[in-house]
Amino acid sequence: MSTHNADPRAELKRQAAIEAADMVKEGMVVGLGSGSTSAFMIEELGRRWAEGLRFCAIPTSEHSAEQARSHGIKLVTFATHPEIDIDIDGADEVERGTLNLIKGLGGALFREKIVAAASRRFVVVVDDSKLVDRLGARVPVPVEVASFGWTSTARRLEALGARVTQRLDRSGNVFVTDGGNMILDCHFGEIADSEKLQLQLDRVVGVIETGLFIGRTSEVIVATAGGLQRLRAS
Amino acid sequence: MSTHNADPRAELKRQAAIEAADMVKEGMVVGLGSGSTSAFMIEELGRRWAEGLRFCAIPTSEHSAEQARSHGIKLVTFATHPEIDIDIDGADEVERGTLNLIKGLGGALFREKIVAAASRRFVVVVDDSKLVDRLGARVPVPVEVASFGWTSTARRLEALGARVTQRLDRSGNVFVTDGGNMILDCHFGEIADSEKLQLQLDRVVGVIETGLFIGRTSEVIVATAGGLQRLRAS
Repeated sequence: MSTHNADPRAELKRQAAIEAADMVKEGMVVGLGSGSTSAFMIEELGRRWAEGLRFCAIPTSEHSAEQARSHGIKLVTFATHPEIDIDIDGADEVERGTLNLIKGLGGALFREKIVAAASRRFVVVVDDSKLVDRLGARVPVPVEVASFGWTSTARRLEALGARVTQRLDRSGNVFVTDGGNMILDCHFGEIADSEKLQLQLDRVVGVIETGLFIGRTSEVIVATAGGLQRLRAS
Repeated sequence: MSTHNADPRAELKRQAAIEAADMVKEGMVVGLGSGSTSAFMIEELGRRWAEGLRFCAIPTSEHSAEQARSHGIKLVTFATHPEIDIDIDGADEVERGTLNLIKGLGGALFREKIVAAASRRFVVVVDDSKLVDRLGARVPVPVEVASFGWTSTARRLEALGARVTQRLDRSGNVFVTDGGNMILDCHFGEIADSEKLQLQLDRVVGVIETGLFIGRTSEVIVATAGGLQRLRAS
């Protein structure tokens, strides 16, 4: 991966990811997010590791694990490290004010949420194109469901007002998560009450986890053309 | 499997299972539960299939699928049959009055719940030793969780008041569900408000599904020494 980017938006994300990586201190247990922004963050942590910084990390996807491993970063599991000091991850939408998120367009939402839930601080890195006034404005809510009975699960999601599409991979086959499940992308449009929706989705039989991250964000680092902004949960 | 049982309790369960199998009519889509009582029911359905009754079935476990297949019963999936006419299954505890259940000591709770949720009628077959005044009196609530991060998930379940034990198989290895996940048995003791507990458990990150079946039961067929009883949801 290059350390400079011709794409100005990618360069902005890289700057924000470096700022987030700077929050990782000697001896910490670090959650490694997934996706393109997290890849910049892991690259920067790899650079610091090479300079002598020592920490250990729990990755949220096989892909992030592989990247961290390639830098020699020490990977651990919950079995020995049940509490995480800081989790750094990207997001697909960040709601201004609440800092609630939609995540999981990359397909790793379940592990991402488990790591976020076990972390003392959850830091999100995005560029300003991801900021919205209302979640659901631009992206669907990814919902991880069991393959078994997914058509009946999809009906129950539709009954909550979603237009449901089955996630496919680049080859046009059904997308399979690291956990062996499927993703149903649920298009709700702008979500008036995302906390209520999360509760409704949690109750749907067949649903494993959703890409709504409500009340979990400690801080958001936003890359803008004018520089970095930091948003803190109020 | 023998058609008569030396064990009087097993014979009672078999009688109740035959009564339930009698509710399956020509052309129905039938959910096949899992466990010892369901095995009697599938045996009886196999007998009726051999006599010429035709229906199709969606099994809740690999074990039940295998048993049904051995009788030649036609198995289908949700893809072609998203709505189930009747689902017949056992339970580990049935609460008098509410007919709420604890299920999943056999480990198939997730598929069992998906099939129950897709069924117009959900019929439960038990012997009277399973009837309790309050759920949780004798058995733990089985909770299916992702293997990834299960220790942190277990901590969150303990925070809800449970004593948590990891389900092992007969060989002493970690029990793995048909979906590839783990079961944490959550010992709450008598549960004052099982609906509230279900909502709390649904919200725990890492939880896939729980063995609490709230408000789903259409009817319970109870085998007692004095004969069969039928309980209907009020």
